[in-house]
Amino acid sequence: MAYYGAIEAGGTKFCCAIGNEHGEIVEEWIIPTEHPEKTLQTLIPFFRKHAIEALGVGSFGPICVQKDDPFYGYIMNTPKAEWKHYPFIPELEKQLGVPVSFTTDVNAAALGELTKGAAKGLNSCMYITVGTGIGAGAVVKNELLHGHSHPEMGHILIRQHESDQFAGVCPAHGSCLEGLAAGPAIEKRWGKPAKELAQEESVWALEADYLAQALMQYTLILSPERIIMGGGVMKQKQLFPLIREKLAAYVNDYVDMPPLDTYIVSPGLEDKAGMTGALLLAIEAKRNV
Amino acid sequence: MAYYGAIEAGGTKFCCAIGNEHGEIVEEWIIPTEHPEKTLQTLIPFFRKHAIEALGVGSFGPICVQKDDPFYGYIMNTPKAEWKHYPFIPELEKQLGVPVSFTTDVNAAALGELTKGAAKGLNSCMYITVGTGIGAGAVVKNELLHGHSHPEMGHILIRQHESDQFAGVCPAHGSCLEGLAAGPAIEKRWGKPAKELAQEESVWALEADYLAQALMQYTLILSPERIIMGGGVMKQKQLFPLIREKLAAYVNDYVDMPPLDTYIVSPGLEDKAGMTGALLLAIEAKRNV
Repeated sequence: MAYYGAIEAGGTKFCCAIGNEHGEIVEEWIIPTEHPEKTLQTLIPFFRKHAIEALGVGSFGPICVQKDDPFYGYIMNTPKAEWKHYPFIPELEKQLGVPVSFTTDVNAAALGELTKGAAKGLNSCMYITVGTGIGAGAVVKNELLHGHSHPEMGHILIRQHESDQFAGVCPAHGSCLEGLAAGPAIEKRWGKPAKELAQEESVWALEADYLAQALMQYTLILSPERIIMGGGVMKQKQLFPLIREKLAAYVNDYVDMPPLDTYIVSPGLEDKAGMTGALLLAIEAKRNV
Repeated sequence: MAYYGAIEAGGTKFCCAIGNEHGEIVEEWIIPTEHPEKTLQTLIPFFRKHAIEALGVGSFGPICVQKDDPFYGYIMNTPKAEWKHYPFIPELEKQLGVPVSFTTDVNAAALGELTKGAAKGLNSCMYITVGTGIGAGAVVKNELLHGHSHPEMGHILIRQHESDQFAGVCPAHGSCLEGLAAGPAIEKRWGKPAKELAQEESVWALEADYLAQALMQYTLILSPERIIMGGGVMKQKQLFPLIREKLAAYVNDYVDMPPLDTYIVSPGLEDKAGMTGALLLAIEAKRNV
């Protein structure tokens, strides 16, 4: 049996796993995100012990994904000062001596869901997480969506309601989607965390409207076959029918969308989408050597 | 010498061409868009005469691009009643007996620019036309952007300025991007066609702002390596520096973009981008048989 490694690298924790060539996770563990050298020191021995064939990483960002860039595989301009410009992937490659493939955490989740989750059998999908931030990744014609860089779809502009005078919490854009609709925005606007507001209809009507506006942009620009919505805020399941209804109103039959209850869905892999995607990247990295 | 056919199918005219295997156009002609059967009757003999190996089509839409859909290759829900649900590509294939590849006019233009124009040597680009409508297409990792359907990027939502009370002209969305910023919107808002407003600074400041908002969304969602802007309205070259400046302000250094004077550019193939892309599709269709 050949083993592969996977890392879902986040700002507060690193979720790590060993999996087999079928993309099945066989062992998992979590370590806190510390100084990069210390973090690597903790995780490298574990991957070495299992003699992994390759490693896949879904990472927090921004990250440099351009293969011809001298900063390829580096964490770029992050507020986490210790990680800024850290040669994350080159270090992993050097220390492990195996191929390492990487993308954003949300792109990895989209790949996981397309291959083994809620978008299985399709050629394209989007994965959007609505939690402490808003991020989204996509697979287009079975390829991860990268271009000059990777998408940062959580920061698109939406139209703020006249009734909503909240200034937004995004340090870069104020009232962009993340600034108006991520968990911290909900908590600051309404004075309580999202999970304590479950019964407040006006909270979710506004939230669904902002997310539906974002989904309209994603639909018109990417035309995905399925949109998978995860993250802490999306645990409020009452959002799904509201988002579908508002999306239909915004699009107004201008473009053909799949039936909305199959178009806008919850993750099929629960919180394992990103890890599964990272594992699939590892398997592909070995195949391409 | 092997010959290939190309059609850029628009609502008022069909631009047709014969080209060689290097993607060079060797002969062109234009016919008016009439009843579909009449239009095909006019163009088929010309392609037959040149014994083309394959045909590529960049078409007005909406069109069905899903290969497993029974309506594959049909013109879909267009306001041009005679063309609605016309089996455009199946008819061309049947009458010509050669492989026919097709996509939207703007996707074809993006492919043309990537292969032989302003984005030559890159792996991804967007082509946006701002004229009687606003449309955009993209190539991602050297593949045309298709998903559930094709993009309709001209209809995204943008934020209208408080000083701009214009209701917008889009029948489906009112004040979407196309509704606020295409040629007919400019003419209706200001009372004159765009080309007669060249000296009016406030016209272009507003136009650049709306287009920069759209480019921010495209950048954050698709992360293209280059954005090519064509169409009648973009003949107002003073728009380019204004758009670049406003895009930089909106993005606010949140994501890395290429240097803006190489990121936002005019077409390299002038008005031949779509035709060149269609010809390249024909060559590829033959290769894939």
